Amino acid sequence: MKKLKIGVFGATGMVGKELLNVLYDRKFPIANLRLYAGKSAGSKLKTHFGEMIVEEANNADYSELELAFFAIGSSWSEENVSKAEDSDCTLIDLSSAFRYNEEVPLVIPEINPDSIENHKLIASPNCTTSIAAIPLWYIDKNFEIKNVRIATYQATSGAGKEAMEELERETKRVLDGKKPKCEKFQYPIPFNVIPHIDEFQSNGYTKEEMKVVWETRKIFGNEDMNIECIVCARIPTYRVHSEAISVQTKNPVDIGLLRQILSEAPGVEVKDNIFNNEYPMPLTATGKYDVEVGRIRNSLIDGKYGLNFWVCGDQLLKGAALNAVQIGELVARIYEK
Amino acid sequence: MKKLKIGVFGATGMVGKELLNVLYDRKFPIANLRLYAGKSAGSKLKTHFGEMIVEEANNADYSELELAFFAIGSSWSEENVSKAEDSDCTLIDLSSAFRYNEEVPLVIPEINPDSIENHKLIASPNCTTSIAAIPLWYIDKNFEIKNVRIATYQATSGAGKEAMEELERETKRVLDGKKPKCEKFQYPIPFNVIPHIDEFQSNGYTKEEMKVVWETRKIFGNEDMNIECIVCARIPTYRVHSEAISVQTKNPVDIGLLRQILSEAPGVEVKDNIFNNEYPMPLTATGKYDVEVGRIRNSLIDGKYGLNFWVCGDQLLKGAALNAVQIGELVARIYEK
Repeated sequence: MKKLKIGVFGATGMVGKELLNVLYDRKFPIANLRLYAGKSAGSKLKTHFGEMIVEEANNADYSELELAFFAIGSSWSEENVSKAEDSDCTLIDLSSAFRYNEEVPLVIPEINPDSIENHKLIASPNCTTSIAAIPLWYIDKNFEIKNVRIATYQATSGAGKEAMEELERETKRVLDGKKPKCEKFQYPIPFNVIPHIDEFQSNGYTKEEMKVVWETRKIFGNEDMNIECIVCARIPTYRVHSEAISVQTKNPVDIGLLRQILSEAPGVEVKDNIFNNEYPMPLTATGKYDVEVGRIRNSLIDGKYGLNFWVCGDQLLKGAALNAVQIGELVARIYEK
Repeated sequence: MKKLKIGVFGATGMVGKELLNVLYDRKFPIANLRLYAGKSAGSKLKTHFGEMIVEEANNADYSELELAFFAIGSSWSEENVSKAEDSDCTLIDLSSAFRYNEEVPLVIPEINPDSIENHKLIASPNCTTSIAAIPLWYIDKNFEIKNVRIATYQATSGAGKEAMEELERETKRVLDGKKPKCEKFQYPIPFNVIPHIDEFQSNGYTKEEMKVVWETRKIFGNEDMNIECIVCARIPTYRVHSEAISVQTKNPVDIGLLRQILSEAPGVEVKDNIFNNEYPMPLTATGKYDVEVGRIRNSLIDGKYGLNFWVCGDQLLKGAALNAVQIGELVARIYEK
């Protein structure tokens, strides 16, 4: 494959570090790698590619790059994307800045790789969306989805490195008999659940809850898809989002057949043997590329025309870095043509 | 009110201790109080009623009691309930032993107080059921429920004192850089989620998931009620079960009206002001008698004919001790007649 000049923006953040790990692990065709950041510019970063200097993100010269990963944040992406316009650099944006822009494809490579076409700006979806999307896609293809309802159990690292550190630090405080504080979260997170991620919208849903709706519809190419989040909740875990998902279908679902289909689906690991206490958990899904899927069974309400299941996916990997690198691999193939 | 001779069985357990707290706090009419336990028999227990000796549960003489709370466990309840048969003692059983017995009323005093009649054995429901039931009851009465789907976020103390201690002890181990162990749970619980509570049934649902179905139907007097748990999951919290609930209704739901109805409902505290970040959380619901209800909004899928909401309730209180004492208060009134 043609080797590319790569830039990783936000290289010192949680997702940035995972981007570097995944690029290395998947032997991405790299001709030259440069790291960029905002606040941490000027620092040195130890990577699998050796110790590297982190450059100032705002001053990047996109003519020196062929592929850039934007993992700094949505307002930074919004402000900087035009700087690459006159260059040949393709941008993969991990923020929410352009996901809902009609002219920007929103891509999960296992589902809609072709939507990349020759776009120079490609968006990677929200973590909660990515983790649920692949099993939902196979359910839709085989049994036709009527309705989807999701309740999430989201890890602190989804809110960034400092949020994860806050969980650790404040949990220690609680265990020392002290009162926990909160900075990154609205309330103390140790031994608590916070049913509030991202901003509230005028319809009473949070933006996190709406992202799943907007993004799944766009990725599935079905603007009328019936999908909603009962709630998106933050729980005191470090890594991996879990999701309880209830689906109604137009056609009857044979659970054995669905397990078989999902076990052959790329990006999915079926962990569904209740007789052996095998089911998805953050404990086992942490650091894993595949999304774990289990507890698959027909609905008590809808019978064969519905099912309930449970997924756990590393939101820093399939929910962010891995999905973006997979998009990068598709871009690399296009560059080759 | 006529003062009664009370026995608390399982007095040294988590629920037992809460039973004593609630009896004291609600000024229960007590003529004489005796404590019983299995393993801890012979020990002394400090209570609001003074330091008391814990007697051997198996040797209790029920002719000396008028009202007994059974909070030892379902197999103990099964084995011991017949011992009270020839006495005048009324038994309130907090275990699952008799909940599904047609001749035994299963009672939430805010919902079906009259089902107590003159029964001498009364069952108090599972914690997950009790916490969701009151808001669901008011939704059903006012808008007629079509379907209910629940995903739970359950605290470790629901599995007993040792399970809660395991969370604390093993979380410390993790924070000290050690590998966590598990004894009370199937897998380590610190910073993890375990989608498995109680035993798996042949239909792929856990017994915990089915308890909510069986018990809600019985309490509501509606054997055909469409209700299911997407999943019942254990999370690393000490106390309070949270539940994400999705309801479809036969009649359109006016959310403002529902908030008004719930704010006047006994046993419920509406915490639902998203502009002020007010919503139910374990942090605020711990130690509270009322179940917190919030994040109430119409469904994106069903519009006015559906809603999503979030409840947090102290499973040791409304989920166990409080509900049992409330049943006891109804029994005390019957004794008075």
